[in-house]
Amino acid sequence: MSATNGPTPGQRILGVDPGLQVTGYAVLEVAARGPLVCEAGVIRTAEGRETPDMAPRLLALYTGLVEVVAQYRPNVMVVEQLYAHYEHPRTAILMAHARGVIFLSAAKHDIPVVSYNASRIKKTITGHGRASKEQVQYTMMRELRLAQVPEPPDVADALAAALCHYYAQRLPA
Amino acid sequence: MSATNGPTPGQRILGVDPGLQVTGYAVLEVAARGPLVCEAGVIRTAEGRETPDMAPRLLALYTGLVEVVAQYRPNVMVVEQLYAHYEHPRTAILMAHARGVIFLSAAKHDIPVVSYNASRIKKTITGHGRASKEQVQYTMMRELRLAQVPEPPDVADALAAALCHYYAQRLPA
Repeated sequence: MSATNGPTPGQRILGVDPGLQVTGYAVLEVAARGPLVCEAGVIRTAEGRETPDMAPRLLALYTGLVEVVAQYRPNVMVVEQLYAHYEHPRTAILMAHARGVIFLSAAKHDIPVVSYNASRIKKTITGHGRASKEQVQYTMMRELRLAQVPEPPDVADALAAALCHYYAQRLPA
Repeated sequence: MSATNGPTPGQRILGVDPGLQVTGYAVLEVAARGPLVCEAGVIRTAEGRETPDMAPRLLALYTGLVEVVAQYRPNVMVVEQLYAHYEHPRTAILMAHARGVIFLSAAKHDIPVVSYNASRIKKTITGHGRASKEQVQYTMMRELRLAQVPEPPDVADALAAALCHYYAQRLPA
Protein backbone atom coordinates (compact mmCIF):
# COMPACT_ATOMS: atom_id res chain seq x y z
CA MET A 1 0.00 0.00 0.00
CA SER A 2 2.71 2.47 0.96
CA ALA A 3 4.97 4.13 -1.61
CA THR A 4 8.49 2.76 -1.84
CA ASN A 5 9.88 6.06 -0.61
CA GLY A 6 7.43 6.31 2.27
CA PRO A 7 8.36 6.44 5.95
CA THR A 8 10.43 3.44 7.03
CA PRO A 9 9.78 1.90 10.47
CA GLY A 10 12.56 3.01 12.79
CA GLN A 11 13.22 6.18 10.80
CA ARG A 12 13.76 9.18 13.05
CA ILE A 13 12.72 12.66 12.00
CA LEU A 14 14.08 15.67 13.91
CA GLY A 15 11.90 18.75 13.56
CA VAL A 16 13.44 22.08 14.57
CA ASP A 17 11.73 25.45 15.06
CA PRO A 18 14.58 28.00 15.02
CA GLY A 19 14.74 31.00 17.32
CA LEU A 20 17.46 33.09 18.92
CA GLN A 21 15.82 32.91 22.35
CA VAL A 22 14.03 29.58 22.23
CA THR A 23 14.46 26.81 19.66
CA GLY A 24 11.89 24.03 19.68
CA TYR A 25 12.91 20.50 18.74
CA ALA A 26 11.07 17.22 18.37
CA VAL A 27 12.22 13.70 17.51
CA LEU A 28 9.58 11.48 15.92
CA GLU A 29 10.14 7.78 15.29
CA VAL A 30 8.20 6.03 12.56
CA ALA A 31 6.43 2.95 13.96
CA ALA A 32 3.96 0.51 12.42
CA ARG A 33 1.03 2.27 14.10
CA GLY A 34 2.28 5.72 13.10
CA PRO A 35 4.75 8.28 14.37
CA LEU A 36 5.81 8.23 18.02
CA VAL A 37 7.37 11.10 19.94
CA CYS A 38 10.83 10.10 21.26
CA GLU A 39 11.49 13.49 22.79
CA ALA A 40 10.41 17.06 22.32
CA GLY A 41 11.48 20.22 24.09
CA VAL A 42 13.18 23.56 23.78
CA ILE A 43 16.75 24.81 23.81
CA ARG A 44 16.86 28.15 25.61
CA THR A 45 19.75 30.34 24.59
CA ALA A 46 19.04 33.62 26.36
CA GLU A 47 19.12 32.47 29.95
CA GLY A 48 21.38 33.82 32.66
CA ARG A 49 21.91 37.21 31.09
CA GLU A 50 19.59 40.03 30.19
CA THR A 51 20.94 40.71 26.73
CA PRO A 52 23.38 37.98 25.82
CA ASP A 53 25.51 38.44 22.73
CA MET A 54 24.68 36.67 19.53
CA ALA A 55 27.78 34.44 19.56
CA PRO A 56 27.22 32.73 22.96
CA ARG A 57 23.55 32.25 22.09
CA LEU A 58 24.46 30.51 18.87
CA LEU A 59 26.99 28.37 20.73
CA ALA A 60 24.33 27.33 23.28
CA LEU A 61 21.93 26.48 20.46
CA TYR A 62 24.57 24.49 18.56
CA THR A 63 25.68 22.60 21.67
CA GLY A 64 22.11 21.78 22.68
CA LEU A 65 21.16 20.58 19.23
CA VAL A 66 24.30 18.47 18.83
CA GLU A 67 23.34 16.72 22.11
CA VAL A 68 19.92 15.83 20.69
CA VAL A 69 21.49 14.64 17.43
CA ALA A 70 24.07 12.52 19.28
CA GLN A 71 21.41 10.93 21.49
CA TYR A 72 18.77 10.16 18.84
CA ARG A 73 20.77 9.96 15.60
CA PRO A 74 17.94 11.22 13.39
CA ASN A 75 17.84 10.21 9.71
CA VAL A 76 16.62 13.59 8.56
CA MET A 77 16.27 17.11 9.96
CA VAL A 78 13.28 19.30 9.08
CA VAL A 79 13.56 23.09 9.42
CA GLU A 80 10.96 25.64 8.42
CA GLN A 81 11.78 27.74 5.35
CA LEU A 82 12.52 31.43 5.79
CA TYR A 83 11.16 34.02 3.42
CA ALA A 84 12.52 37.40 2.43
CA HIS A 85 9.03 38.87 2.18
CA TYR A 86 8.60 38.18 5.84
CA GLU A 87 6.52 40.68 7.75
CA HIS A 88 9.47 41.31 10.05
CA PRO A 89 12.71 41.19 8.05
CA ARG A 90 14.74 41.97 11.17
CA THR A 91 13.34 38.87 12.86
CA ALA A 92 13.94 36.82 9.73
CA ILE A 93 17.59 37.91 9.67
CA LEU A 94 18.09 37.06 13.35
CA MET A 95 16.41 33.69 12.84
CA ALA A 96 18.63 33.02 9.84
CA HIS A 97 21.69 33.17 12.12
CA ALA A 98 20.13 30.42 14.25
CA ARG A 99 19.15 28.53 11.12
CA GLY A 100 22.74 28.62 9.86
CA VAL A 101 23.94 26.96 13.05
CA ILE A 102 21.14 24.37 12.87
CA PHE A 103 22.10 23.47 9.29
CA LEU A 104 25.72 23.21 10.39
CA SER A 105 24.83 20.75 13.16
CA ALA A 106 23.11 18.59 10.53
CA ALA A 107 25.99 18.79 8.02
CA LYS A 108 28.51 17.94 10.75
CA HIS A 109 26.62 14.69 11.37
CA ASP A 110 25.80 13.89 7.70
CA ILE A 111 22.09 14.38 8.25
CA PRO A 112 20.12 15.67 5.24
CA VAL A 113 18.02 18.79 5.84
CA VAL A 114 14.55 19.26 4.38
CA SER A 115 12.61 22.53 4.47
CA TYR A 116 8.91 23.30 4.07
CA ASN A 117 7.36 26.71 4.26
CA ALA A 118 5.21 27.55 7.26
CA SER A 119 1.89 27.51 5.39
CA ARG A 120 2.66 24.10 3.86
CA ILE A 121 3.37 22.71 7.34
CA LYS A 122 0.20 24.19 8.81
CA LYS A 123 -1.94 23.03 5.89
CA THR A 124 -0.54 19.49 6.05
CA ILE A 125 -1.10 19.30 9.80
CA THR A 126 -4.32 21.21 10.42
CA GLY A 127 -5.83 21.56 6.94
CA HIS A 128 -5.40 25.35 7.09
CA GLY A 129 -2.31 27.19 5.84
CA ARG A 130 -2.98 30.03 8.27
CA ALA A 131 -3.80 28.01 11.38
CA SER A 132 -3.16 29.73 14.73
CA LYS A 133 -0.49 28.64 17.19
CA GLU A 134 -3.25 27.21 19.39
CA GLN A 135 -4.64 25.14 16.50
CA VAL A 136 -1.19 23.73 15.79
CA GLN A 137 -0.69 22.91 19.49
CA TYR A 138 -4.10 21.26 19.77
CA THR A 139 -3.67 19.29 16.56
CA MET A 140 -0.27 18.02 17.69
CA MET A 141 -1.72 16.81 20.99
CA ARG A 142 -4.52 14.95 19.21
CA GLU A 143 -2.51 13.52 16.28
CA LEU A 144 0.37 12.34 18.41
CA ARG A 145 -1.86 11.19 21.29
CA LEU A 146 -0.07 13.38 23.84
CA ALA A 147 -1.37 13.70 27.40
CA GLN A 148 -1.39 17.49 27.11
CA VAL A 149 -0.96 20.38 24.74
CA PRO A 150 2.76 20.81 23.88
CA GLU A 151 4.17 23.94 25.53
CA PRO A 152 5.67 26.37 24.68
CA PRO A 153 4.31 26.71 21.11
CA ASP A 154 7.87 26.28 19.77
CA VAL A 155 7.66 22.60 20.72
CA ALA A 156 4.39 22.22 18.82
CA ASP A 157 5.95 23.92 15.78
CA ALA A 158 8.90 21.52 15.88
CA LEU A 159 6.52 18.54 16.15
CA ALA A 160 4.49 19.96 13.25
CA ALA A 161 7.60 20.31 11.05
CA ALA A 162 8.60 16.70 11.75
CA LEU A 163 5.06 15.38 11.23
CA CYS A 164 4.71 17.36 7.98
CA HIS A 165 7.75 15.52 6.65
CA TYR A 166 6.28 12.20 7.78
CA TYR A 167 3.10 12.88 5.79
CA ALA A 168 5.01 14.32 2.82
CA GLN A 169 6.88 11.02 2.47
CA ARG A 170 3.60 9.11 2.35
CA LEU A 171 2.32 11.11 -0.59
CA PRO A 172 3.16 10.12 -4.15
CA ALA A 173 5.84 12.46 -5.52
CA MET B 1 50.39 58.88 23.39
CA SER B 2 48.10 55.94 22.72
CA ALA B 3 44.91 55.34 24.71
CA THR B 4 45.10 52.59 27.31
CA ASN B 5 42.54 50.57 25.36
CA GLY B 6 44.25 51.13 22.04
CA PRO B 7 45.71 48.40 19.85
CA THR B 8 48.31 46.30 21.69
CA PRO B 9 51.40 45.15 19.80
CA GLY B 10 50.96 41.49 18.92
CA GLN B 11 47.17 41.75 18.94
CA ARG B 12 45.59 39.88 16.05
CA ILE B 13 42.41 41.06 14.41
CA LEU B 14 40.48 38.68 12.15
CA GLY B 15 38.20 40.48 9.69
CA VAL B 16 35.53 38.41 7.96
CA ASP B 17 33.32 39.34 5.00
CA PRO B 18 30.51 36.76 5.04
CA GLY B 19 29.03 35.18 1.95
CA LEU B 20 27.42 31.89 1.03
CA GLN B 21 29.61 31.48 -2.07
CA VAL B 22 32.78 33.30 -1.08
CA THR B 23 33.77 34.49 2.39
CA GLY B 24 36.72 36.87 2.63
CA TYR B 25 39.00 36.76 5.65
CA ALA B 26 42.03 38.75 6.75
CA VAL B 27 44.31 38.48 9.78
CA LEU B 28 46.02 41.73 10.81
CA GLU B 29 48.70 41.87 13.48
CA VAL B 30 49.31 45.07 15.38
CA ALA B 31 53.00 46.05 15.19
CA ALA B 32 54.88 49.13 16.37
CA ARG B 33 54.88 50.58 12.87
CA GLY B 34 51.20 49.81 12.31
CA PRO B 35 49.08 46.85 11.27
CA LEU B 36 50.65 44.03 9.26
CA VAL B 37 48.81 41.48 7.14
CA CYS B 38 49.50 37.93 8.43
CA GLU B 39 47.22 36.33 5.87
CA ALA B 40 44.22 37.23 3.76
CA GLY B 41 42.17 35.15 1.37
CA VAL B 42 38.81 33.63 0.65
CA ILE B 43 36.94 30.51 1.68
CA ARG B 44 34.95 29.22 -1.30
CA THR B 45 31.94 27.15 -0.37
CA ALA B 46 30.18 26.58 -3.68
CA GLU B 47 32.85 24.70 -5.56
CA GLY B 48 32.51 21.27 -7.09
CA ARG B 49 28.76 21.39 -7.52
CA GLU B 50 26.47 23.64 -9.51
CA THR B 51 23.90 24.27 -6.79
CA PRO B 52 25.22 22.89 -3.53
CA ASP B 53 22.85 22.70 -0.59
CA MET B 54 23.01 25.23 2.18
CA ALA B 55 24.19 22.75 4.83
CA PRO B 56 27.40 21.55 3.11
CA ARG B 57 28.24 25.14 2.20
CA LEU B 58 27.94 26.20 5.80
CA LEU B 59 30.07 23.25 6.88
CA ALA B 60 32.78 24.20 4.35
CA LEU B 61 32.70 27.79 5.61
CA TYR B 62 32.86 26.73 9.26
CA THR B 63 35.69 24.27 8.64
CA GLY B 64 37.70 26.81 6.66
CA LEU B 65 37.28 29.53 9.24
CA VAL B 66 38.14 27.25 12.16
CA GLU B 67 41.41 26.45 10.34
CA VAL B 68 42.27 30.15 10.15
CA VAL B 69 41.33 30.63 13.80
CA ALA B 70 43.43 27.64 14.90
CA GLN B 71 46.44 28.82 12.92
CA TYR B 72 46.43 32.51 13.90
CA ARG B 73 44.56 32.56 17.23
CA PRO B 74 43.08 36.03 16.73
CA ASN B 75 42.17 38.14 19.78
CA VAL B 76 39.05 39.52 18.18
CA MET B 77 36.85 38.83 15.17
CA VAL B 78 35.26 41.65 13.17
CA VAL B 79 32.16 40.95 11.07
CA GLU B 80 30.12 43.49 9.14
CA GLN B 81 26.67 44.27 10.57
CA LEU B 82 23.60 43.14 8.64
CA TYR B 83 20.60 45.36 8.23
CA ALA B 84 16.96 44.50 7.77
CA HIS B 85 16.41 47.47 5.46
CA TYR B 86 18.87 45.93 3.08
CA GLU B 87 18.16 46.48 -0.59
CA HIS B 88 18.03 42.74 -1.06
CA PRO B 89 16.41 41.07 1.97
CA ARG B 90 16.79 37.64 0.37
CA THR B 91 20.55 38.15 0.15
CA ALA B 92 20.63 39.46 3.72
CA ILE B 93 18.84 36.34 4.95
CA LEU B 94 21.21 34.03 3.08
CA MET B 95 24.20 35.96 4.41
CA ALA B 96 22.81 35.72 7.94
CA HIS B 97 23.07 31.93 7.74
CA ALA B 98 26.78 32.31 6.97
CA ARG B 99 27.11 34.95 9.68
CA GLY B 100 25.59 32.57 12.25
CA VAL B 101 28.25 29.98 11.48
CA ILE B 102 31.00 32.64 11.63
CA PHE B 103 29.81 33.79 15.07
CA LEU B 104 29.72 30.17 16.19
CA SER B 105 33.35 29.63 15.14
CA ALA B 106 34.28 32.64 17.29
CA ALA B 107 32.24 31.52 20.32
CA LYS B 108 33.69 28.01 20.09
CA HIS B 109 37.17 29.52 20.49
CA ASP B 110 36.27 32.20 23.05
CA ILE B 111 36.97 35.02 20.62
CA PRO B 112 34.88 38.17 21.09
CA VAL B 113 33.03 39.39 18.00
CA VAL B 114 32.72 43.07 17.08
CA SER B 115 30.45 44.42 14.35
CA TYR B 116 30.45 47.69 12.44
CA ASN B 117 28.04 48.66 9.75
CA ALA B 118 29.26 48.84 6.15
CA SER B 119 29.17 52.63 5.90
CA ARG B 120 31.13 53.03 9.15
CA ILE B 121 33.82 50.70 7.81
CA LYS B 122 34.01 52.49 4.45
CA LYS B 123 34.06 55.92 6.07
CA THR B 124 36.81 54.92 8.51
CA ILE B 125 38.93 53.42 5.75
CA THR B 126 38.36 55.67 2.75
CA GLY B 127 36.71 58.77 4.26
CA HIS B 128 33.50 58.04 2.34
CA GLY B 129 30.62 55.95 3.71
CA ARG B 130 29.56 55.03 0.19
CA ALA B 131 32.96 54.23 -1.29
CA SER B 132 32.98 51.81 -4.23
CA LYS B 133 34.48 48.32 -4.06
CA GLU B 134 37.39 49.60 -6.18
CA GLN B 135 38.06 52.44 -3.74
CA VAL B 136 38.10 50.00 -0.83
CA GLN B 137 40.48 47.69 -2.72
CA TYR B 138 42.81 50.54 -3.70
CA THR B 139 42.81 52.03 -0.20
CA MET B 140 43.63 48.64 1.34
CA MET B 141 46.57 48.20 -1.02
CA ARG B 142 47.94 51.65 -0.14
CA GLU B 143 47.25 51.61 3.62
CA LEU B 144 48.62 48.12 4.16
CA ARG B 145 51.52 48.56 1.71
CA LEU B 146 50.47 45.55 -0.38
CA ALA B 147 52.23 44.72 -3.65
CA GLN B 148 48.91 44.64 -5.49
CA VAL B 149 45.21 45.31 -5.15
CA PRO B 150 43.58 42.59 -2.99
CA GLU B 151 41.41 40.30 -5.12
CA PRO B 152 38.60 39.31 -5.09
CA PRO B 153 36.90 42.33 -3.46
CA ASP B 154 35.79 40.05 -0.57
CA VAL B 155 39.41 40.00 0.62
CA ALA B 156 39.56 43.79 0.56
CA ASP B 157 36.30 43.96 2.54
CA ALA B 158 37.69 41.59 5.16
CA LEU B 159 40.88 43.68 5.40
CA ALA B 160 38.74 46.81 5.69
CA ALA B 161 36.67 45.34 8.54
CA ALA B 162 39.82 44.39 10.45
CA LEU B 163 41.49 47.75 9.81
CA CYS B 164 38.33 49.62 10.85
CA HIS B 165 38.54 47.90 14.23
CA TYR B 166 42.21 48.77 14.50
CA TYR B 167 41.42 52.46 13.99
CA ALA B 168 38.32 52.31 16.22
CA GLN B 169 40.50 51.15 19.12
CA ARG B 170 42.82 54.12 18.64
CA LEU B 171 40.02 56.63 19.00
CA PRO B 172 38.97 57.87 22.44
CA ALA B 173 35.73 56.17 23.49
